[in-house]
Amino acid sequence: MTASPPERTGRHNLDPHLDRYAARTEGMTASEIRALFAVASRPEVVSLAGGMPNLAALPLDSLSAQVGELIAEDGLTALQYGSAQGIPVLREQICDVMALEGISAHSDDVVVTVGSQMGLDMVTRLFCDPGDIVLAEGPSYVGALGSFAAYQAKVVHVVMDDEGLVPEALREALAAAKRAGQRVKFLYTIPNFHNPAGVTLAVERRAEIMEICREHGVLVVEDNPYGLLGFDGQTYPSLRSIDPENVVYLGSFSKTFASGLRVGWVLAPHAVREKLVLAAESATLCPPTLNQMIVSRYLATHDWKGQIKTFRENYRERRDAMISALEQYLPSGCSWTHPDGGFYVWVTVPEGVDTKAMLPRAVTARVAYASGTGFYADGFGSRQMRLSYCYPTPERIKEGVRRLAAVLESEMDLVRTFGTVSMKPISGPENPSPDTA
Amino acid sequence: MTASPPERTGRHNLDPHLDRYAARTEGMTASEIRALFAVASRPEVVSLAGGMPNLAALPLDSLSAQVGELIAEDGLTALQYGSAQGIPVLREQICDVMALEGISAHSDDVVVTVGSQMGLDMVTRLFCDPGDIVLAEGPSYVGALGSFAAYQAKVVHVVMDDEGLVPEALREALAAAKRAGQRVKFLYTIPNFHNPAGVTLAVERRAEIMEICREHGVLVVEDNPYGLLGFDGQTYPSLRSIDPENVVYLGSFSKTFASGLRVGWVLAPHAVREKLVLAAESATLCPPTLNQMIVSRYLATHDWKGQIKTFRENYRERRDAMISALEQYLPSGCSWTHPDGGFYVWVTVPEGVDTKAMLPRAVTARVAYASGTGFYADGFGSRQMRLSYCYPTPERIKEGVRRLAAVLESEMDLVRTFGTVSMKPISGPENPSPDTA
Repeated sequence: MTASPPERTGRHNLDPHLDRYAARTEGMTASEIRALFAVASRPEVVSLAGGMPNLAALPLDSLSAQVGELIAEDGLTALQYGSAQGIPVLREQICDVMALEGISAHSDDVVVTVGSQMGLDMVTRLFCDPGDIVLAEGPSYVGALGSFAAYQAKVVHVVMDDEGLVPEALREALAAAKRAGQRVKFLYTIPNFHNPAGVTLAVERRAEIMEICREHGVLVVEDNPYGLLGFDGQTYPSLRSIDPENVVYLGSFSKTFASGLRVGWVLAPHAVREKLVLAAESATLCPPTLNQMIVSRYLATHDWKGQIKTFRENYRERRDAMISALEQYLPSGCSWTHPDGGFYVWVTVPEGVDTKAMLPRAVTARVAYASGTGFYADGFGSRQMRLSYCYPTPERIKEGVRRLAAVLESEMDLVRTFGTVSMKPISGPENPSPDTA
Repeated sequence: MTASPPERTGRHNLDPHLDRYAARTEGMTASEIRALFAVASRPEVVSLAGGMPNLAALPLDSLSAQVGELIAEDGLTALQYGSAQGIPVLREQICDVMALEGISAHSDDVVVTVGSQMGLDMVTRLFCDPGDIVLAEGPSYVGALGSFAAYQAKVVHVVMDDEGLVPEALREALAAAKRAGQRVKFLYTIPNFHNPAGVTLAVERRAEIMEICREHGVLVVEDNPYGLLGFDGQTYPSLRSIDPENVVYLGSFSKTFASGLRVGWVLAPHAVREKLVLAAESATLCPPTLNQMIVSRYLATHDWKGQIKTFRENYRERRDAMISALEQYLPSGCSWTHPDGGFYVWVTVPEGVDTKAMLPRAVTARVAYASGTGFYADGFGSRQMRLSYCYPTPERIKEGVRRLAAVLESEMDLVRTFGTVSMKPISGPENPSPDTA
């Protein structure tokens, strides 16, 4: 074996392929959240970490009958290759779904993707050369940060407040990039019920943000998986509806129907759409035909709007359970956002507490969350955590927050005694760190 | 509107996003084959162009019942997110499938992908920096060329003969790359029932090729979608079985079960597999859970080996129909390969005939094929075409070849009269070119 350079961990790297990898693999690191899925499946742990939708509300019996029929009647199409852009009837139905948020689009400009994660990957592939800048809210969606890293784009975070992205901060970020001679490729934003921040971009900021981007020649990538999950049934004008030619819009059925089908879409300006189809073709040839037909039949025959209403009520009840548990249990000095929709609450803990270092102790106390640093490309977020209320029952949420509060209390005791808590997580065979598993 | 540089076509480009695209988009051009799918669907045209498997042999009724049951009994799992690597039970079954071709593997080293096209894309993402060399047979799979182009890898073709890749040519290509100071990242090869060439790598060449690659420190990417479709039931020792640590193996259920499910896999050396999972996660989060469970249940409960035997017999009958039609109808001066499995015959036409230029005339005569240039990254292949026998019935195949022969005859008449046939296809509103649509 030839000598290999040591890994960043300091351990000797035994991978004989080490000098063969592309440069972009250096940015590929295990997401802090991914490993948590394993933990979440242990029944004794209350997982407030994952973003799994609550599918229990789905009408499985009628779905089962419909999918069976679909294969019996139309199996030769459902099980065959299709076009890279996606089946036309579904693309038309997607336009109807988007119309609920003020979007007027032609199905020719819709590209069906394998979840909206693939949309993100394709958009980054189209636009980002290594070193290009992507602006994104701080914090931002961990899967988006993964795609940006895979294409060696550099993320610059833009500050949010309770009203979402701050226009003035966006202006400053653009000016700073200009001064530094950096090429900003797009603003990546989740305007509605943000993951992980749980806030929504104020309506009065939307036109301003679009104007700023237009002015600076910067494209907007609008990621909107949660837009129809507003707890009072409210929707917001999409950015795409404000400036159609300057927005690439990402949508998904993962939160409004079924995540395991992996059906999402991109709505793009026409010229971009052509390139998008080519990129998608080289990535997967075509999205699974069966899955597209299942979604299409579901939209055509189920009361899908009623189903979304059921989901909303379900998630509202869980949001309420979480917020009241936070109010009841969390020690003073903690603060959190108040989501009006979506899946997540973003919690800030007192200074001195490190949420990443605390995580193994929380898991030992049988509660899991997503620590904040995973949602930043720049190492920020050590005093933050994301709590999901989408999956556990209200009772479990309450119990989870109670456990989390106890861990936080003892952590804060340590801070008060020793000034700060060691960055090094306590771990061992009995206390596996879910973060590094 | 600001002035934009003219496109390579010479037309003015109206895309306002033109100066925003990543450099890699320059290599993204519409595959010559993609547009043919639209033509293939016109009932009056005999399509010998596509690579759609013949699913009519599938037991749709029992599949329908099984998938229905799956959703009723296990829908909360089937419709939910899963792991990026794929569900464990399917990965174990995949090891059983690969064992049929001499592969001994652990399910930990299998990554399920959205078709093996995604496997190709992921492998290229992991290994290829812009400008890196990929060696591939000439001709090679058009979808692979698309993935290589998307990552700006440069393809160098290596000559094949009736026994597959020529070891001496591989040696020469590696030596030439070394002299030129080029970095060869991997050899991409389809050893069995090659797409599009229809030939199989001789058993006695396999160890030699693996030895050459090992010697030159070059990884082998073995793409094997057709390996179980040998017409006499014969299988060949996979390259992976010869040198497990130096092969990334791509497999697929698209040809042995159902392409529309988009379930493929990568078997990689352990260290590579870790990075592969990270890359896959940033590309699609996870492959569709439902589709994996459908394949898994199918493998567990159907006589899948018997089904493959049915497919084989089906394709052998069509191969026979095509070969005898070629012998009966094609003008002298044409030659073709004799596949022992898979979907394709590779035809060489007499000098002076340009298969790409001829294609619109063939479509007017109600027969379609895939012209040869699409299977080369270097413009070669204008005297070649790929004929698929997988999808049409034997009668349609015979009729298609008869029509093709007539077009070829008149093309050769022109060549005899004028020396060569114009490169410019005759096209117009009545003769749409499927190649440039």
